Amino acid sequence: MLKHNSYFEGKVQSVGFERNGRKLTAGVIDVGEFHFNTDAAERMTVTSGELLIRLAGKSEWRSYPAGTAFEVAAKSGFDVKAEGPSAYLCEFL
Amino acid sequence: MLKHNSYFEGKVQSVGFERNGRKLTAGVIDVGEFHFNTDAAERMTVTSGELLIRLAGKSEWRSYPAGTAFEVAAKSGFDVKAEGPSAYLCEFL
Repeated sequence: MLKHNSYFEGKVQSVGFERNGRKLTAGVIDVGEFHFNTDAAERMTVTSGELLIRLAGKSEWRSYPAGTAFEVAAKSGFDVKAEGPSAYLCEFL
Repeated sequence: MLKHNSYFEGKVQSVGFERNGRKLTAGVIDVGEFHFNTDAAERMTVTSGELLIRLAGKSEWRSYPAGTAFEVAAKSGFDVKAEGPSAYLCEFL
């Protein structure tokens, strides 16, 4: 069963699903800067556009254009900035 | 602004957005078989899982695993089958 998620007054929205016992979401991040905390570790693959990411405890922003991916540790978090609406696939690890 | 779309009693859901004047959606297709009609031509890129596609007027089903894409003509349509929930990026051309 699919599940619609909406955060930050609809500026981040995703559709959650499960396959082979693994949880994933496919979503979109609108223009802006947002903070997410992680419970499980996750791999975020940018599928359209570009995301700027600052992992918890880091001062540096890194750029992840479409086709690239980054991983976030469990019980951690990250700041994300989008200069244009950008799509991602999130796999919970 | 992002827009949530839901079709087939929630078995196909997507988040629509616009970038550089082009419309896109990031979505998920749950297990099942569905038919979509196109207004504009579109390119569908499978971002997770696998979709089986039969374009309008064809008898053959073709497989599109994650990382591959297919295009559908304007004012046409296609049948899509998912054996596991699968994610896609749709770009309206």
